[in-house]
Amino acid sequence: MGFANALQKARIDVETCLTREIENRDFGPLAAPITHGVLNGGKRLRAFLVLEAARLHDVSLGRALFAAAAIECIHAYSLVHDDLPCMDDDDLRRGQPTVHIKWDEATAVLVGDGLQSLAFEMLTDISVGAADIRCDLVQSLAKASGSEGMVLGQALDIAAEAVGTADVDQILAIQSAKTGALIQWSAEAGARLAGEDPSALGIYAKHLGLAFQIQDDIIDVEGSEAEAGKRLKKDEDAGKATFVTLLGLEGAKARARSEVDAALSALDPYQGAELLIELAEFVISRRM
Amino acid sequence: MGFANALQKARIDVETCLTREIENRDFGPLAAPITHGVLNGGKRLRAFLVLEAARLHDVSLGRALFAAAAIECIHAYSLVHDDLPCMDDDDLRRGQPTVHIKWDEATAVLVGDGLQSLAFEMLTDISVGAADIRCDLVQSLAKASGSEGMVLGQALDIAAEAVGTADVDQILAIQSAKTGALIQWSAEAGARLAGEDPSALGIYAKHLGLAFQIQDDIIDVEGSEAEAGKRLKKDEDAGKATFVTLLGLEGAKARARSEVDAALSALDPYQGAELLIELAEFVISRRM
Repeated sequence: MGFANALQKARIDVETCLTREIENRDFGPLAAPITHGVLNGGKRLRAFLVLEAARLHDVSLGRALFAAAAIECIHAYSLVHDDLPCMDDDDLRRGQPTVHIKWDEATAVLVGDGLQSLAFEMLTDISVGAADIRCDLVQSLAKASGSEGMVLGQALDIAAEAVGTADVDQILAIQSAKTGALIQWSAEAGARLAGEDPSALGIYAKHLGLAFQIQDDIIDVEGSEAEAGKRLKKDEDAGKATFVTLLGLEGAKARARSEVDAALSALDPYQGAELLIELAEFVISRRM
Repeated sequence: MGFANALQKARIDVETCLTREIENRDFGPLAAPITHGVLNGGKRLRAFLVLEAARLHDVSLGRALFAAAAIECIHAYSLVHDDLPCMDDDDLRRGQPTVHIKWDEATAVLVGDGLQSLAFEMLTDISVGAADIRCDLVQSLAKASGSEGMVLGQALDIAAEAVGTADVDQILAIQSAKTGALIQWSAEAGARLAGEDPSALGIYAKHLGLAFQIQDDIIDVEGSEAEAGKRLKKDEDAGKATFVTLLGLEGAKARARSEVDAALSALDPYQGAELLIELAEFVISRRM
């Protein structure tokens, strides 16, 4: 199965799982906005990473599915909160109105809060594996998404924007926390599910995450809003330092390429990692 | 040890634990607002419930402490988010400016998000016990705090306020989700830590939580802002239905009393539950 098909299969698998889990619960008035927040057509790269890294470790789809669904819930909660007027103030996400636009701000806060809980609830499902493995997944995801990881990254990003200056080291630190930590967790989860050492996949994902963010900055400058499904050039409009403003467009592209090369080197211990190789190439060639 | 001393000891134990856990982590610019959000002088009734129910099940303080700290993190996150302008819009909490007043709204959203992650991170600490017990605690807390529990309760509360009408059954449903679920988890955690049946403590806590909320409504009408440390009469000002508006002041007091009696009956299987009995009496006699 080629990369595009595998990515599509991962998307269908994780969205089927998320749809079922939401339908099986009584979320009352939050059911519709939660569905909108988490099932709005993302690429599901994090879910794909979980499922493919799990497959490399001979972990069944049935065991890995809730870990994939959990990381997509955490990612979706962060987008719903980041889109709030007090944060990035975005009206549009993947071509759809954001949760606080379609409903209201209170609903968006609650949707994010509830999606975070749902992630940890699913991760402790008995189908995921032995209890010590489930605890390891919960603890590592809590660290990756919390105030030393993703949440810290968003705080640092807002602080840097307020001050108006940032150098490459600062952007690397923000980036590694804000989006890097979740991407790293996604790749490592495959090894964690097998009770094996996640460090090689962690190094792969660290470089992959960085390449991903650099490409995001490149799309923000070079891309079209129709393809990207969101407002572009907002970093430029805000006078915000990005990899492109700091390294130049060609410098940013070269850095993204070298990060992908470093990611690929980290896969040396693995046989059959063709899809993770293709993912890394996809990350710096995508237009959305 | 009498109830007042035991409550004070629980408060000191859980706050020492929370202070140490925050200091041991690198929360960057979020360290101060997180400390403000979770260490601002609450009564720590939920932590006390965890620790006392654990003691009744012969679970050591060392094992129960992170469960107590976790529930206080979840409670604190819910208050920080509920105080936001888009939710209850409160400037004052326990006599102190709320997080979004002292910092800003973005910080308050992130503080709440980070405190939720911290709760699940602590709950999976090896000191809490066997992995299956930690998983049980994580899963039950995720359910109790999420979109079928506390988060749902806040959504139902906002929806009921918008419609402007509510009867006793609706308020019971809102209440049981919004504050009841966390109080129930706190009491049940003691049994869960011991790997024992939490249902008797669950019934105790269900009635206790209801008595607690009825007393909150009574304080809102009868109390003084100086004693309560928060704005009062806001439900009345908002024309919101409460136990007092629906049952009358005397009716609400009688209902609170009968809930306490039902809570006490549920303690019949337990020897040495004097402090939980005193807690129930405290809940309907408190002025803050």
